[in-house]
Amino acid sequence: MLEPALIAQLRDIVGDTHFRDDPEALIAHSYDGTPMLQAKPDAVVYPANTEQVSAIMKALSTYKVPLISRGSGSNLCGGTVPVEGGVVMVMHRMNQILELDMENLTARVQPGLITADFINHIEALGLFYPPDPSSMRISTIGGNIAECSGGLRGLKYGTTKDYVLGLEAVLASGEIIRTGGKLMKDVAGYDLTKLLVGSEGTLAVITEATLKLIPPPQSKMTMLAMFRDLYGAARTVSAIIEAKIIPATLEFMDNPTIRVVDDFAKLGLPLDMEAILLIEQDGDPETVERDIELIRQICMREQADSVQVAATREEAERLLTARRSAFTALARLRPTTILEDATVPRSKIADMVLRINEIATKYNVTIATFGHAGDGNLHPTATTDARDPEEIHRVEQAFEDIFAAALELGGTITGEHGVGIVKAPYLEWKVGASGISLMKGIKDVFDPDHILNPGKVFAKETRKRVVLQHG
Amino acid sequence: MLEPALIAQLRDIVGDTHFRDDPEALIAHSYDGTPMLQAKPDAVVYPANTEQVSAIMKALSTYKVPLISRGSGSNLCGGTVPVEGGVVMVMHRMNQILELDMENLTARVQPGLITADFINHIEALGLFYPPDPSSMRISTIGGNIAECSGGLRGLKYGTTKDYVLGLEAVLASGEIIRTGGKLMKDVAGYDLTKLLVGSEGTLAVITEATLKLIPPPQSKMTMLAMFRDLYGAARTVSAIIEAKIIPATLEFMDNPTIRVVDDFAKLGLPLDMEAILLIEQDGDPETVERDIELIRQICMREQADSVQVAATREEAERLLTARRSAFTALARLRPTTILEDATVPRSKIADMVLRINEIATKYNVTIATFGHAGDGNLHPTATTDARDPEEIHRVEQAFEDIFAAALELGGTITGEHGVGIVKAPYLEWKVGASGISLMKGIKDVFDPDHILNPGKVFAKETRKRVVLQHG
Repeated sequence: MLEPALIAQLRDIVGDTHFRDDPEALIAHSYDGTPMLQAKPDAVVYPANTEQVSAIMKALSTYKVPLISRGSGSNLCGGTVPVEGGVVMVMHRMNQILELDMENLTARVQPGLITADFINHIEALGLFYPPDPSSMRISTIGGNIAECSGGLRGLKYGTTKDYVLGLEAVLASGEIIRTGGKLMKDVAGYDLTKLLVGSEGTLAVITEATLKLIPPPQSKMTMLAMFRDLYGAARTVSAIIEAKIIPATLEFMDNPTIRVVDDFAKLGLPLDMEAILLIEQDGDPETVERDIELIRQICMREQADSVQVAATREEAERLLTARRSAFTALARLRPTTILEDATVPRSKIADMVLRINEIATKYNVTIATFGHAGDGNLHPTATTDARDPEEIHRVEQAFEDIFAAALELGGTITGEHGVGIVKAPYLEWKVGASGISLMKGIKDVFDPDHILNPGKVFAKETRKRVVLQHG
Repeated sequence: MLEPALIAQLRDIVGDTHFRDDPEALIAHSYDGTPMLQAKPDAVVYPANTEQVSAIMKALSTYKVPLISRGSGSNLCGGTVPVEGGVVMVMHRMNQILELDMENLTARVQPGLITADFINHIEALGLFYPPDPSSMRISTIGGNIAECSGGLRGLKYGTTKDYVLGLEAVLASGEIIRTGGKLMKDVAGYDLTKLLVGSEGTLAVITEATLKLIPPPQSKMTMLAMFRDLYGAARTVSAIIEAKIIPATLEFMDNPTIRVVDDFAKLGLPLDMEAILLIEQDGDPETVERDIELIRQICMREQADSVQVAATREEAERLLTARRSAFTALARLRPTTILEDATVPRSKIADMVLRINEIATKYNVTIATFGHAGDGNLHPTATTDARDPEEIHRVEQAFEDIFAAALELGGTITGEHGVGIVKAPYLEWKVGASGISLMKGIKDVFDPDHILNPGKVFAKETRKRVVLQHG
C-alpha cells in the first residue's frame, strides 16, 4: 500500500487519468510473458516524458518504494513482475521517433516505441535496424534494450547491444544521465551505454535511445535443409561458418518441434527427420546466390536428406513459417509452455541437443528444442501444466540440469532472454561468486536503496550446483 | 620506495631476472607514447602467467602499492605513465595465442601478444580480425583492449570492443574473474566484458581474451579523391553513407597534412588541395567494383578535383602511404608532436575542421588535421616544442577549445585514444557530474584502494568549461 501523500504526488505528476490503482490495472500488470509468476503492484503510472519519469523517481526514492519500468511485458524471465510490489511504470505513451538523421544513419527514439513499428517505418525509408526478437510485433525498443534482445538475424548482425549508440536514462535518485551520442566511437570513460543495455531495469529507467541504422541488404534467399542425423545438421552449422560464410539466419528445429509445427501449420514437413535447418543469406544478389549454393553443397555433403531453396519471396515466407510457428505450435499442446534459452558455443549444438533429450527422458518431461543454431542459442521448450506441481517440479529439475549442461559445454544460462527472476538462482553458476559481488557492487552504485526492479538478476540464494555424471 | 619485504615477495613470485628496479628499467618505464609526461615507477615486473599476476596483485594490495599494467606503452593519453609511482607490470612474456577455434571462429590469446603478429598469424589461416590501430606493429592486444583501440577499418567493422567475447582478468585483490566466453550471445548479468574493454587498466589486469574472428573480405579496392573545397570533401563523406555504402576505410587529410606528407614521402600530391579522402572498399569483387564506381561518381558530383582508383595492389599501397605517413611526416617538423582525437558525428566533419583551423589561428599554433572521416574521428595534430612553456600553454589552450568545440557539435573528447591523464580534466564535460560519480562508484567496486593505475581517467579537478562564442 502506498502512502496517500505519495499517491497524491504521483497523480499530480502524471495527471489523474495516467495514475491507476484500480484492481483491473493492478491485475493486468501483475504478470508478464513468463508463465507461473504473478505479483500485484500497488499502482501503475503512465509517464508522458523524461521530466515526469524523473519526478516520479524522486518521489519514489523519497518513500523508498520499488519502481518496475516496463514496455509490453513480453519478456520470458519474469523481468517485469512486481515481486516486491511498488509502482509499475508503463512506457507506452513515450513511443515517438524523435529524430531520423539520414546523414549519420542514426535514430533517436523513445522507449515505448513498438520495435516492429520502428522497423517498418525506417525500412520504408530504405534503412535497416537488424535486431528482430520474435516478440517484435508487441515488444518495445526500451524493453529490447533492457533485455538486450536478440533475434533471428543475430548471427550476422549482432543483437540490440550492437545498435545502441547512446542513452538518456533516469537514475533511482531521479537524476537524468546521458551516455554516448551519434558517435561510432567514444571512449570517454567507462562504457555506461553498454552497461545499461541488458541491465533489465535494475540500474536506471531508459527514457531515450540513439540507435545505429545500417544500409539494408539488397537481396535475400531462404532455404530449408532436412537431416535424418542430428549430428549431420550440427556439423552443417559448423561447416558453413568454417567455410567462412556467415548467413543472416541459421535456425534449427529438432524432431519433436518438426512434428508439432507440421501438425499446427500443415506444411507437409517430413516427420521422420531428426532436424531441420532454416538458412537465409542476404546481401548483394551475386554473393547471396553464391553463398546459398555453397551452403547447399555443404548440406548435401553432410548427408542432408533434402534441401529446398525458395524460388520466390512467397515460397520463402512459407519456409519461414515453419520456424516462426514453433512457439505457437508448441503452446497448443499443453496448458503451460516454458521456453528457455541455454546457449553454447556453436560447435556444441549437437551435444547440447542430445543432452537436452537425455535430461527430458531422465525426468520424464516433454521438451522440444529449436533456436538460433548459428549463435548456439537454443530454446529448449517444455510443454507442461502449471496446475500439476509434481510435474512442474520435474520440469524445473530438468531445466536446472540443462543450465548445468550448457555451462559444462562452455555456454551460458541465457543468450537473449535475460536473468530476471527465473535465472537468478543460476547466475552465480555462470559468473562465479566474484562476478556476483562485482555486479551487486555496480547495482549499489546506481541504485543504493534497491528500488529499481528489486528481486531481479540477484537471487537471495544460489541453487546448489548439481554435479552431472554424464558428458 | 617499496618495502624490502614486498620486493622480496615480488622477486619470489616472478624470479630474480623478471623483477627490476635498476635505474635503466625505471627510466625506460617512466614514459609512454604521450609527449611531455614522465614519472618513475619503483619497480618493473614481468609476469609469466595469470597465477603470477594474481600473486603480485595480492602482494601489492596488502601493501597498497599502485600497479600499472602495460603492453608496449604506445598509447597517446599518458595511460601507462606511473604518476603515483608503484610497480609497472609489463605483459610481454604473456604473448601466446592459446587457442584458435576454427569451428567457432574464436581465438584465445594472452594480453602481451603484438596485435600485428596476431593479425598476420590468423590472416595466413584465412581469417580476419579487423581492429587495426596505427600502433599495431608495436602495440599489444591487451593494450588495445585496455584502450578500446580503433583503427582505419572501424567505420565498417567496429573497434576492439566489438571483437572481445570474453576475458580473464585479475582484480586489485588478486582474485581471478572470467567473463563471457566463446559465445555470440550472453546476457547473464551485467556486461562486465564490455565494461572492462576501454577501462584503461583502472578496473582489473587483463590476463586473457577470447576474440571473435570473421571471414576475410575476398577483395579490396583503394582510391584517393582530391578536393579544392573542404566542404566538398565533407559532403562526400556524408553522401557516401547516405547512398548506403559503408566503405571499409574513409580517411581524411587537410591541406597542412597534405603539404607535410608530400614533402616527407615525395608522392607528388597536389599541394593546393584543401582535402584528400582516402577510400577503400572490401568484400566480394562485384560489390567492391560497384561501390567504388558509385563513390567515384559521388566524389565527382561533389566537385572533386581528381579521383584516382588504384589499378593494382602496389598502386593501392602507394595511395595508402599518404595517409599512413601523416603522423611520421608531421613528427619531423618540430621537436614535439601532440596528436589528439576529438570526435564528432560524421555530418559535422567540415564544421569541426574549420573550428580547428580558427582555434589554431586564435592561439597562433600549428595544427594539421587528418583522421577517420567516416567515424567523425579526427586527429588534430599540433607540432610544437615541449621546451617552450609559453607555446605549450597556447597549444593546451587550443586543445581545450577543440574539445569544447567537439562537444558543442555533439561529439566527444576522445574517440579511440582513451582518457588517461591527458583528457581526465575534460571527462566531466562529456559525461557530466553524474556520469563521473557513477564511474567513480564503479571504480570503487573493482578497486576500493585505488591501486590499479591511479591518477588516470579521473582528474583531481575538472577544467573550468570555456564558453565559446563562435558557432
